[in-house]
Amino acid sequence: MKKIILSLIAISAASVSFSAAAQFAKPEDAVKYRKAAFTVMATHFGRLGAMAQGKVPFDAKIAADNAEIVADMAKLPWHAFGEGTETAETKAKPEVWKQGAKFKEASDKLQAETVKLVAATKTGKDDAFKTAFAATGGACKSCHDDFKNK
Amino acid sequence: MKKIILSLIAISAASVSFSAAAQFAKPEDAVKYRKAAFTVMATHFGRLGAMAQGKVPFDAKIAADNAEIVADMAKLPWHAFGEGTETAETKAKPEVWKQGAKFKEASDKLQAETVKLVAATKTGKDDAFKTAFAATGGACKSCHDDFKNK
Repeated sequence: MKKIILSLIAISAASVSFSAAAQFAKPEDAVKYRKAAFTVMATHFGRLGAMAQGKVPFDAKIAADNAEIVADMAKLPWHAFGEGTETAETKAKPEVWKQGAKFKEASDKLQAETVKLVAATKTGKDDAFKTAFAATGGACKSCHDDFKNK
Repeated sequence: MKKIILSLIAISAASVSFSAAAQFAKPEDAVKYRKAAFTVMATHFGRLGAMAQGKVPFDAKIAADNAEIVADMAKLPWHAFGEGTETAETKAKPEVWKQGAKFKEASDKLQAETVKLVAATKTGKDDAFKTAFAATGGACKSCHDDFKNK
């Protein structure tokens, strides 16, 4: 029985690492990917920021287009924080891996806020947009404070 | 009259550069952004490639998820090839700016192929997927051949 369980663990471990290998060939690839996803997200979030701060007039269509990209991108980086990717050139703090549940919670929070942000832009109401923008920005900042080196 | 026209041209030029500035603060930002968008696109296209080559079994749901990200990303990089971004560190050939219409055509072609790719994954048919994957890969290659240095 013990032997069977050990075999199952071995198979399971093998498929985990196979799956990780299938996702990214090298840890550097995972780091490059997640940085890229954050770069695209930050660019479009920055455009929303210009509207939220009144530097650019609020335009519901443009806001929704940008918010949808932010929400799409917010789904992506997390699977690239796998084991072994903490050693590559990264600003991620060790807490990403030490406090996995808390990191997951922070990434879920961001995704939830971006969904609300898309909905807010679609109301066409500047105030609703600004509130949702601030909440999303708060989710970014909170996660950066806990999990990202400056 | 000439004065008015010159003023209008000046205003128009100012708003163009304002708009470009609003999109990207610096040419380097545009280059970083478009590279990031291509990195995310290439990662997910690579996962489809593993399926198309039979290294990973075809799974319609996983293929569709990846194809949708590819199609979303395929819309993004082009606005980051503005004037002035040819001088930053880039692998883009001068032809991007010298042959703007041809570059636009190549980017439109890619976007059209990625839409077909998403549809093909949703048929659940391995053959349809492989055909669409090859056509999308052809659109990548053709544009790289003409517009990207190795």
